[in-house]
Amino acid sequence: MQPTHIEHIGIAVTSLDEAIPFFETLLGTKCYAIEEVTDQKVRTAFLRCGQTKIELLEPTCPESTIAAFIEKNNGRGGMHHIAFAVEGIENHLAEAKAAGIRLIDEKPRAGAEGLSIAFLHPKSTFGVLTELCENKNNK
Amino acid sequence: MQPTHIEHIGIAVTSLDEAIPFFETLLGTKCYAIEEVTDQKVRTAFLRCGQTKIELLEPTCPESTIAAFIEKNNGRGGMHHIAFAVEGIENHLAEAKAAGIRLIDEKPRAGAEGLSIAFLHPKSTFGVLTELCENKNNK
Repeated sequence: MQPTHIEHIGIAVTSLDEAIPFFETLLGTKCYAIEEVTDQKVRTAFLRCGQTKIELLEPTCPESTIAAFIEKNNGRGGMHHIAFAVEGIENHLAEAKAAGIRLIDEKPRAGAEGLSIAFLHPKSTFGVLTELCENKNNK
Repeated sequence: MQPTHIEHIGIAVTSLDEAIPFFETLLGTKCYAIEEVTDQKVRTAFLRCGQTKIELLEPTCPESTIAAFIEKNNGRGGMHHIAFAVEGIENHLAEAKAAGIRLIDEKPRAGAEGLSIAFLHPKSTFGVLTELCENKNNK
């Protein structure tokens, strides 16, 4: 495994409307996209910082895993996951599995921004919910 | 404020000895430095991923804020903070304060790798412990 860079940091928020202006101030840049990812039950907002994006995640219903994260975190948001950009996500997943890392997704699935994504389980990644993602759109 | 990139992601771990081999596998790169930061009561280990470093943080005593973080997190590590690289950290702190962001450090202090660092309070940064840092060594 050798990710090229950190593609994004996922941050859970209770309200995009409240969080976006703050992160626009912090990062000195405008949010460039808002997208609903239906199967993850979230609305996402993206801002750039160097090679990496900040992905704000707002739950769209109480059954969203982001809603559960916020509830567990005493009603507050916070850092939710790190996503590493890889080339050849299937090979990376196979290598992760061979290294004894527990996979949440055995195969890549569609994520925000048209990326192919897969999550590794935080119980085998030292408590860090870890995403691998690949942009196959430019190939 | 306009950070140039994400300088590092801080990850709390209970043991560097256990965590380093995992992150070396995940990132496909060797840990390039281990450093004790006495006033923060941590031992840190660094690995590179693109523009960004992963900073593993192991508490050196029970009074360390990292020890408190791990205890609050049911004895497990996890994502602790995001550090943004800035040019002109004093001006960035003044801008943050003017924008109503609560500062943990009113003035920059010395961090790992000889950086000038300052933390913003997570209560005013949507639950994300946020560090600003500047490398003044190359100037």
